[in-house]
Amino acid sequence: MHRTIVIMAGGSGQRFWPLSRTSRPKQLLNLASPDRSLLAQAVDRATALVDPRDVTIATARHLVEPIREASLGIPPENVIGEPCKRNTAGCLVYAAASILATTGAAAEDILMGILTADHRIIDEAAFQGTVSAAFEAAAGHPALVTVGIQPTRPETGYGYIETGDRAEPIQGAGTGFPIFRVLRFHEKPDAESAAQYCERGGFYWNSGMFFWRLSSFLGEFEHAEPQFGRACLRLADALRAGDNETADRVFQALPDRSIDYALMENARHVLMARGRFRWDDVGAWDALERSLPRDSHGNVQVGDPVLLDAANCVVVNAPGADAMAVGVIGVRDLIVVVSRDGVLVVPKDQAQRVRDVVEELGRRGAPQV
Amino acid sequence: MHRTIVIMAGGSGQRFWPLSRTSRPKQLLNLASPDRSLLAQAVDRATALVDPRDVTIATARHLVEPIREASLGIPPENVIGEPCKRNTAGCLVYAAASILATTGAAAEDILMGILTADHRIIDEAAFQGTVSAAFEAAAGHPALVTVGIQPTRPETGYGYIETGDRAEPIQGAGTGFPIFRVLRFHEKPDAESAAQYCERGGFYWNSGMFFWRLSSFLGEFEHAEPQFGRACLRLADALRAGDNETADRVFQALPDRSIDYALMENARHVLMARGRFRWDDVGAWDALERSLPRDSHGNVQVGDPVLLDAANCVVVNAPGADAMAVGVIGVRDLIVVVSRDGVLVVPKDQAQRVRDVVEELGRRGAPQV
Repeated sequence: MHRTIVIMAGGSGQRFWPLSRTSRPKQLLNLASPDRSLLAQAVDRATALVDPRDVTIATARHLVEPIREASLGIPPENVIGEPCKRNTAGCLVYAAASILATTGAAAEDILMGILTADHRIIDEAAFQGTVSAAFEAAAGHPALVTVGIQPTRPETGYGYIETGDRAEPIQGAGTGFPIFRVLRFHEKPDAESAAQYCERGGFYWNSGMFFWRLSSFLGEFEHAEPQFGRACLRLADALRAGDNETADRVFQALPDRSIDYALMENARHVLMARGRFRWDDVGAWDALERSLPRDSHGNVQVGDPVLLDAANCVVVNAPGADAMAVGVIGVRDLIVVVSRDGVLVVPKDQAQRVRDVVEELGRRGAPQV
Repeated sequence: MHRTIVIMAGGSGQRFWPLSRTSRPKQLLNLASPDRSLLAQAVDRATALVDPRDVTIATARHLVEPIREASLGIPPENVIGEPCKRNTAGCLVYAAASILATTGAAAEDILMGILTADHRIIDEAAFQGTVSAAFEAAAGHPALVTVGIQPTRPETGYGYIETGDRAEPIQGAGTGFPIFRVLRFHEKPDAESAAQYCERGGFYWNSGMFFWRLSSFLGEFEHAEPQFGRACLRLADALRAGDNETADRVFQALPDRSIDYALMENARHVLMARGRFRWDDVGAWDALERSLPRDSHGNVQVGDPVLLDAANCVVVNAPGADAMAVGVIGVRDLIVVVSRDGVLVVPKDQAQRVRDVVEELGRRGAPQV
C-alpha cells in the first residue's frame, strides 16, 4: 500500500492582512512559531509519516513558486497548482489525479491522507498517533476516514461530527485506537446547539483532515457526485499524457463545492479517528492570543511596539515594517497590526472583519492587498 | 519707529508624532491647512504687517536649515538658531539681540512684536486689527503689551490673563481699540477656576503674543530679572562683532525660564489688547477635529484610510506613508496616525500622551523620533 499525504494550501490571504497578502497567504507566515510557517510545520508533520517524495502540496497556481522557493524539503514538482479555484472538492480531485498520474499505482493501492496547512497542532506525538490510526483505518475499511477533535469548549466557529458506535477493530492492526462510525456532519452551530453537542458527548470538531484509499474516494464519489470521480480519472489520464490543456478544461468544468458537501455528507461509509491532541484553527489575528505568550497586562506583543496602559491587546509590528515605530496608548481588547503594506486597527471580537477591509481596499484598487 | 516681528518656532516635535519628529516639528507640518504649514501661515500674517526683511524666525539650530529650505518669503539670514534650549525668555533675548545687532537702531526706536507659530488663526482680519492695536499700544505706552483671547469655553489647557480698567487712549492713535491694564497672570487653571474666570468676565486666554519697544523690554527685565536684559545687550555686542563664541557662551549661561515667569508676571507695566478673533492652539492630534471637516460618522480622515463602523475618530494616513493601506474597524473616539516613521493609536481624550510614547521610543534608541 502506497501512503501519500496531500497538504491543502490554497488560502486566499485575507484574514491576516496586512501581514498576509494575495501573494503571501497565511500558510506562509510565521504566525504561531517564530521561525516556521504553518505550511512548513505541516510538511514536517507529513514527512515524519511518509517519504518526502510522497508529500504533495496542493495550492493556487500563483502560489506555486513562492511555496517552492520556501524550500520545505519536498521535491519542487510535488507543489501543484490548481488551474483555478474550485474549493476543497476540486482541490482533492486534482491532487488525487496528480498522484494517480505520477505514481502509476492502482487506486486500490494508494492511501491518501489529507492535512491542512492552516492549523496549529500543539501535541505532535498525539497527532502522529491519531494520523497513523486514521491511515490504518483507511487501509482496513472501505470507508472515508475523518479526524474529529475532542471539543474543549462550545465553539461556534467549527463544524461538528456526530458519531455512533465504535468501528470493529481492524484485522491485524495493533493500535487499538478508537475509531467511530460517523452518523452525520453538522455545520457551524449556533451557541445553543454547540452547548448541547458538548453536553451530550459523541460530537467532535471537524478537523478537515481525511484519509482514504483512492479507490474508496472514487467509489464514494460515484455514489454521491459522479462527475467528480469521473473528472478525477480524466484528469489523471490528461496529466499522465502531459495534456495540460485538457486537464485545465476538465478541472474548470467542475462546480465549486467543498469536500464536505460534495462527498463527506453523502458518503455511505465514513469513520472518524478521535484526536485528543490540542488543535487550533489559526483563523484570524485574535488567534495569536492562544499561541503566543502574554505580558502582565494580557497583551500579546510581536516586534517591539511601545504599549502604555494597554490591556488585553494584540499588537504586531511585523518584520519588514521595522522602519516603523508603533505606539499604542490607553486601549483595551484591540488588535493593532503594522506591516510594510498597511495598518489594521480592529477590536478583537471583530477580528474576522479584516476581510471587509481587504475587499474595500480591492475595490479602491489599492496595491497593498 | 522700526516695526519688527519675531516668530517663535522652536517646538520639539513631540506632540504630533509620528508625523512630527525632532527634525520636522509641528510648525512645519500642514496640519490645519492642506497646503500651508503653521509656520508658513504665521509668516504670511507677519509680512502683511511689516516688511519681510523685518520678520525674524527664532528656532533651534538644527531647524534653521529645514526652515530656510521651506522658502517662506523672508531672507534666509532672518532664520536664527538659538545655541541651545533656553525656553521662551532665552529665545526672545536672543531674537532681540539679533535685531539690535542687525538693524543698528536704538532700543527706544525698535518695536518688537512676537507671534507664535503653533496656533491657527481663523479670522485673519480681526487678528490683523488686534495686532495693529497692540503695536500702537506698545509704541504709545512704556509697557509690555500682550494679546488676550476672549474665552469661548472654560478651557483648562490655557493660561489666563486677569484685566482691570481700560488704558487711557493713546495720543494720536485713531483705532479706539480696547486696551486693558493687566492685573495678573494665572497659570492653567483647574476646571472650577476656569468656570469662575469665564463667569466673572475680564479674564482672557493668554495667547503667547507680545508687543513692546525694545527699551521697555530691557527696562522691565532690569526690574524683574536683570541678568536677562544685560545678557541681551552683551549678546547684541557679540553678534554685531561677529563673535559667535562669546554669544554662545553668554546665551548658555542664561537659566531656562519662560517669558511669563521671567518677565511678564513681574513687570510693572503690562497691557492687553483684546483679541476677538477665533484662535486655536493646535496642541495635539485631537485638535484636527476643530480644523478639518468630519464625515457623516463624525470622523476626520486625512489620506485615504478605510473606515468601517468607526465613529468620532481621527484617522491620518500621512503623505509619504502612501505605500501603506490603513484599515480601521469598529472603534470610536480613537486617534490612528500612520506616517512613514510610525503608527500611533490612542484615545482622543489621551492625545497628550503621545509625548510618553516619544520619550519611551527615545529611551529605546528608536531612530523614528
